[in-house]
Amino acid sequence: MQKIAVDMDGVLADVYSQFIKMHLKEFGETISPESVYGKTEGEAFVNCRKYIQAEGFFRNAPLIEGCRNVLEQINQAYELYLVSAALEFPWSLIQKIEWIKQHFPFIGWQQIVFCGSKQIIAADIMIDDHFKNLDHFPGKTILFTQPHNILKETGRHERVNSWLEIEKILL
Amino acid sequence: MQKIAVDMDGVLADVYSQFIKMHLKEFGETISPESVYGKTEGEAFVNCRKYIQAEGFFRNAPLIEGCRNVLEQINQAYELYLVSAALEFPWSLIQKIEWIKQHFPFIGWQQIVFCGSKQIIAADIMIDDHFKNLDHFPGKTILFTQPHNILKETGRHERVNSWLEIEKILL
Repeated sequence: MQKIAVDMDGVLADVYSQFIKMHLKEFGETISPESVYGKTEGEAFVNCRKYIQAEGFFRNAPLIEGCRNVLEQINQAYELYLVSAALEFPWSLIQKIEWIKQHFPFIGWQQIVFCGSKQIIAADIMIDDHFKNLDHFPGKTILFTQPHNILKETGRHERVNSWLEIEKILL
Repeated sequence: MQKIAVDMDGVLADVYSQFIKMHLKEFGETISPESVYGKTEGEAFVNCRKYIQAEGFFRNAPLIEGCRNVLEQINQAYELYLVSAALEFPWSLIQKIEWIKQHFPFIGWQQIVFCGSKQIIAADIMIDDHFKNLDHFPGKTILFTQPHNILKETGRHERVNSWLEIEKILL
């Protein structure tokens, strides 16, 4: 059975909608995803780091459309791990565990990985929205489109724009 | 530079001394390490799981003798990761981060990994006290002696009884 490492933020958890909501609340300004194409999250949202540290930022993040059903099928067909480079934000760890329990009750604690660098991850397939995680990974790499990566050439990585596309590739 | 994955509990953190202290406090009985050779921690300490969940169990664990100096040298010579299968005990994660900061200030958050299963770990060398972690690892495996593993044949794993022996092998 092939091992697959699936990222959380920007692949399962819709962190952009959290940033947009919190920026709107603070500044009264609606930032569209299109207006921040090619910008890092820090460039797109001036108080990005403050929002990440706000209570419930990760716990209340909505799901990216269509991920739940496809992830459940992947969990049947692959050895699935949810891998989040979350050690930079230690306060997020418990929120992320609760979030996984709430949305993906079929995921056991054996399948969760929190790391700093993903260069320590052994798997056959990695789904991620960051080049820094995919570029060092020797297996099959799937780049999940997010506003920060949408303008870049993908190189050897296969770009997907939705979980429907992941379903077609993997299932 | 070779990657090395070093376990925490039973390799860096002296959890047995915590178990012995808490058992003594609860039952007035001193359990020597020799008396629990070959037993799992759960078999050796009847309230093992209660002790693990006690406030400060991980935060206050003493260091295993000689590990700090050798780990600092390993951190210079290798790409070092501290890898703890801690997801079974989510409340331990913050304690473990604080413990690392206190005892190994040279370890960055990029070098910490919390997982459920270590089958997701990619490295060249793994130091661990549990066969379940070493047996699936394709690289060089070093078994750190602890009372629960002391009676077992090591097979392909290299047994070490101290950090002095690790220093001789790796540095």
